[in-house]
Amino acid sequence: MKTITIGLLGLGTVGKGVVTLLQKQAAKIARTQDFRFKLKSVAVHNCAHHRNDNLPAGTILTDKVTDVVDDPEIQIVIEAMGTIEPAKVAICQAILNGKSIISANKDLLATAGDEILPLAKTAGVDFFYEASVAGGIPILRVLSSSLETDQITQITGIINGTANYVLTAMDREHKDYATALKAAQELGYAEADPTNDVQGIDATYKLIILSRFAFGQSLSLKDVPRRGITTISPAQLISAGQLGLKVKLLAVAKEENRQLFSFVGPAAIPASEPLAHVNGVQNAIAVQSDALGETTYTGPGAGAAPTANSILSDLLATGDDIVKGNCGREFNSYRKPVSAKPLTAAPQQYLITVEGTGNLLSIISSIPTLSWQQQATGRNYWSGLTPVISRDALEELLITLKRSGQKISYLPIANSWQPVLEKIEE
Amino acid sequence: MKTITIGLLGLGTVGKGVVTLLQKQAAKIARTQDFRFKLKSVAVHNCAHHRNDNLPAGTILTDKVTDVVDDPEIQIVIEAMGTIEPAKVAICQAILNGKSIISANKDLLATAGDEILPLAKTAGVDFFYEASVAGGIPILRVLSSSLETDQITQITGIINGTANYVLTAMDREHKDYATALKAAQELGYAEADPTNDVQGIDATYKLIILSRFAFGQSLSLKDVPRRGITTISPAQLISAGQLGLKVKLLAVAKEENRQLFSFVGPAAIPASEPLAHVNGVQNAIAVQSDALGETTYTGPGAGAAPTANSILSDLLATGDDIVKGNCGREFNSYRKPVSAKPLTAAPQQYLITVEGTGNLLSIISSIPTLSWQQQATGRNYWSGLTPVISRDALEELLITLKRSGQKISYLPIANSWQPVLEKIEE
Repeated sequence: MKTITIGLLGLGTVGKGVVTLLQKQAAKIARTQDFRFKLKSVAVHNCAHHRNDNLPAGTILTDKVTDVVDDPEIQIVIEAMGTIEPAKVAICQAILNGKSIISANKDLLATAGDEILPLAKTAGVDFFYEASVAGGIPILRVLSSSLETDQITQITGIINGTANYVLTAMDREHKDYATALKAAQELGYAEADPTNDVQGIDATYKLIILSRFAFGQSLSLKDVPRRGITTISPAQLISAGQLGLKVKLLAVAKEENRQLFSFVGPAAIPASEPLAHVNGVQNAIAVQSDALGETTYTGPGAGAAPTANSILSDLLATGDDIVKGNCGREFNSYRKPVSAKPLTAAPQQYLITVEGTGNLLSIISSIPTLSWQQQATGRNYWSGLTPVISRDALEELLITLKRSGQKISYLPIANSWQPVLEKIEE
Repeated sequence: MKTITIGLLGLGTVGKGVVTLLQKQAAKIARTQDFRFKLKSVAVHNCAHHRNDNLPAGTILTDKVTDVVDDPEIQIVIEAMGTIEPAKVAICQAILNGKSIISANKDLLATAGDEILPLAKTAGVDFFYEASVAGGIPILRVLSSSLETDQITQITGIINGTANYVLTAMDREHKDYATALKAAQELGYAEADPTNDVQGIDATYKLIILSRFAFGQSLSLKDVPRRGITTISPAQLISAGQLGLKVKLLAVAKEENRQLFSFVGPAAIPASEPLAHVNGVQNAIAVQSDALGETTYTGPGAGAAPTANSILSDLLATGDDIVKGNCGREFNSYRKPVSAKPLTAAPQQYLITVEGTGNLLSIISSIPTLSWQQQATGRNYWSGLTPVISRDALEELLITLKRSGQKISYLPIANSWQPVLEKIEE
């Protein structure tokens, strides 16, 4: 049986998870593959911090990244450092040294994927990154194998566990945002600085990676309109519930006529849709495609073991390619020219909420031109569901309502959007 | 660009779907692969019935299976005939002629997989069958790649669209079984002879295939206790709903301590579980595993386009293997010795329903020893949720209740089962 030598960069939550799962599953891997893995060395920032980590006997612990990426014996480098630099330099160096790469680094892949992935192809090495999107859900491999023969028209993801945890807690326990966030931080579900999660930046990175696989198109951060969850109020969640809707931070990309509409932000989803039932730190991705209709993939979006499992599945694929001399195939080879558009600009339905102590109904009745589809009221709030209206009409409505001095907020209704398509010259 | 020549056996719903999707996606396949497919010939039972089928120009239509399986030019045979014989003979002949096989034939794979799959391995050809389980859901490829590095402990599937459609219609429209089945037949969701679907035989075949991938264990039909949905009454569904439960035809396999517990039959699922929201002809498979916890895969369980997409994903994998000279790898290479046990014998909770015109409450109060966890009543029914009780206690309870002359029925509660494990001598 052939032995494949691997090196690991980083020994945080993900790195430790990889070491643990690799040891735990060594016997199963040996039973199903004609090769086994040997973890030769692990590079960390400070060796002293990891003296008591449970590494396999004989594994070298080093504080020099070059001890891993320049080691001629190492065939696969697992990058689990997690920030853009110095991960990027280390990966490039490893690729130039002919090593295959496995990474969970969504920030790096979303922002520099177009730059570093071609290096791997040129060098004839593998570069897999299943763990970079939705932790343990095998969505990238599903998109690149099983859905490759289909035509995907929309991806809708709940792909940030922190934001979903906070929104679920606000909804179930009627907490306000700050209280729910604090509880999430105490439980380890939100970081001390939660900006990337609650502002939708993390979800946008993941949507960028998903869009390459689904639509053959590389979006950039500025292509995707983005809204966070920090201003969502309990009244919005309660009134949404009264109308049979659940509020989730969605990441959406929808292709029509070579135009790729996208957005990341909170939206209200009808309870009849599977995504409405994805709660807590769970992630889910709903894929709409021509042949399959809708398929939905639900599972853990983060955590040491789920992320490690995605990395190990990449490791098996790479090991198989090494043994058979097949390295260099791209994880995603789909490319299609489409133009990026904001989905937020499309006509759609909105849930409008008025909160305050004024006479809310008289405020609403001062807007005679709008036919509210449904309404919900409580002690100090009123919510109404608009028909499909243009973005301009929404802005105008918000301005009018804000004159009342009450707190006015809005949420788009998922899948109500009706993009206006540009004519494409053939 | 290399051309790979394929032959097709059968031109029913699935075969036609393959022909259509292959033409539709030819351009996308050419963009992402370094090969293209040419459909050379199609074998049917009676050529005259297919004169008007829209085959690609130049495709040969024949009524001789041997024109396909003995053609030296054909590299891949897609078997879409659907019954055990003559599909089995045709596949064996094609394998002996060195052709790779793609099949959607669950009956054949479940009953004769252990016999024919090793032939493919010996002959060094591929044999894929993603479409044989849950139509368009890529569950087999997920199990054999992404979940290969994990340890699966339970598979719970809603994997028969007909049964799920009938139960959903009974639940939503308060129809009885016969009326709901008739409507399903009129809409084409149930066959004229629905036995295999409503008696759980089809779901059992799929569970057998799933268990090979998930547990490395080949169950046989007689290993799996099986109950159909034909005696389910509207009162059972209504009272389940009152208690926050949904009734589904489940296929379950659960491994613990090298014992594989399984059953196929209707069960009541708490509404908090994702499977409770899988309605109509949708299929879903929930996988419990050590590293991932629970992941759920939801999508279309049947239909021409979804099934064809699964076959095309097999086709891409086979094409890739042919081009790279890698044929002969098994779709599933996991084997583990476990002993098959009936999950129905495990202690678990049950929903007991009494229907009739008698004094139902006095009947119930005549069983003083049981502490009902929850109760639901209606005009002519009473339902109660038992604590976890043994199979013997259930049988005794049913006998006692039946003395009342009323209609007595029971449903197990999903995931309440607590298998009693045999001690394994190491």
